[in-house]
Amino acid sequence: MKIHVVKIGGNLINDHKLLHDSLEAFCHLQGDKVLIHGGGKKADFISNKMGFYPKMIQGRRITDKETLDIVVMTYAGIINKNIVAKLQSYHCNALGLCGADGNCIQSYLRKMKNINYGYVGDINVKSVNTHLIKFLLKNHITPVLCSITHNGIGNLLNTNADTIASYIAMSLSQEKDCEVELYFCFEKKGILRNMQDPESYLKKINFHLFQKMKKNHTITNGMIPKLENAFLALQNGVCKVSIGLPTHLLLKNNLNKTRLCL
Amino acid sequence: MKIHVVKIGGNLINDHKLLHDSLEAFCHLQGDKVLIHGGGKKADFISNKMGFYPKMIQGRRITDKETLDIVVMTYAGIINKNIVAKLQSYHCNALGLCGADGNCIQSYLRKMKNINYGYVGDINVKSVNTHLIKFLLKNHITPVLCSITHNGIGNLLNTNADTIASYIAMSLSQEKDCEVELYFCFEKKGILRNMQDPESYLKKINFHLFQKMKKNHTITNGMIPKLENAFLALQNGVCKVSIGLPTHLLLKNNLNKTRLCL
Repeated sequence: MKIHVVKIGGNLINDHKLLHDSLEAFCHLQGDKVLIHGGGKKADFISNKMGFYPKMIQGRRITDKETLDIVVMTYAGIINKNIVAKLQSYHCNALGLCGADGNCIQSYLRKMKNINYGYVGDINVKSVNTHLIKFLLKNHITPVLCSITHNGIGNLLNTNADTIASYIAMSLSQEKDCEVELYFCFEKKGILRNMQDPESYLKKINFHLFQKMKKNHTITNGMIPKLENAFLALQNGVCKVSIGLPTHLLLKNNLNKTRLCL
Repeated sequence: MKIHVVKIGGNLINDHKLLHDSLEAFCHLQGDKVLIHGGGKKADFISNKMGFYPKMIQGRRITDKETLDIVVMTYAGIINKNIVAKLQSYHCNALGLCGADGNCIQSYLRKMKNINYGYVGDINVKSVNTHLIKFLLKNHITPVLCSITHNGIGNLLNTNADTIASYIAMSLSQEKDCEVELYFCFEKKGILRNMQDPESYLKKINFHLFQKMKKNHTITNGMIPKLENAFLALQNGVCKVSIGLPTHLLLKNNLNKTRLCL
């Protein structure tokens, strides 16, 4: 079976029109598909409304108990369920999941020597319940996953959505009957050569060029882990990995995107 | 197939120890089972924290857009996912659902002449996707439903959890291969003859006695719609309906509960 694994990022989710277009494009994808979404600024908005402000230690965001509750409410609650309701209205039989649902993604608490990240869960290829995902797909149900996982002993944990998308794609690729394509959708046409010029996207990027662009600071911040996840998937059996606008990525034969190659 | 449909109420959810005991008792139920939960005071707490206060018109609570967002976050997000994670840790293969997930429960906007209730969804026996629930049960997955539904055209709606429990039980009862028992779990031993005496629970209540107790104000407030839902289920094919403490109701041969009869 051919499976499309699609990640939609925070900036697409926060904008009503962009979310609508992304979900419509997702529905047009023929065949089996899985959607993974992050949460972006919505969690910060709710957090601030409730009088909680992100805790930072050494420049890193810490997921304390209040923050965990807020990301669970936001990602698994309001964002996931609104996406599912919208997909259902477009006649896509979506079903929302966090990692605890059906033991879909089991993670382990991140442990570092110097920093306590709080309720953050890391995953590996064994974390993904491919049996459940394939079972839903075979029964014409489209899984919609948010970036909340569980540790199997009753705790929910916060996990990076790009990482979840990559590991789902990798895990499904390792099944002998699966061929997987992975799409990272965001609000740009692809990886830009020049951040000031939205048309300067690369048609292709290989690992060597990624290293070079990282070194000369053309690729920075959140794009670094996103591309690291994307290359990890490509190096581990995922057939095709591309990055760009959802309307370009998911609609047939559109070449305006960045495709990764080894 | 024999199916246990279990509703756990708000006061059980808000107390850590009571929730633990309820979920443990639920796990001990042998065979196919479905859990439905409300939200109770958690939504009010979050609402107040965010600076929103319940809107009342003619003494009735109105679900405006802010309230809807909060109940979705609370019921489908934090409460549902924490229950699922806990059940998974007790080796019950739970999967959380709102009505939009897999088109599980489709509702219609409540329309009244004089009052606009806002985003409130009513349901009927055709609302419940029994195919999905039976399909999950047959595959050893335990559905955990919160009281959020959808209208099929992209909107989430707030629906009473007791009503959802009754309609799920009734709908499953109408399937020719299903025999359904319905349990309303709350923090009392059953329907009390005397509200001041927690030991004064009735062992049985029939519809005639219910009407009488309603008339003389022994049964009041939220207990009235709860019992109306419970009798509706009993009148529509559900084999057995009982009300009481989860630890008493769900553990074998315990007689400390109120059983409904026609």
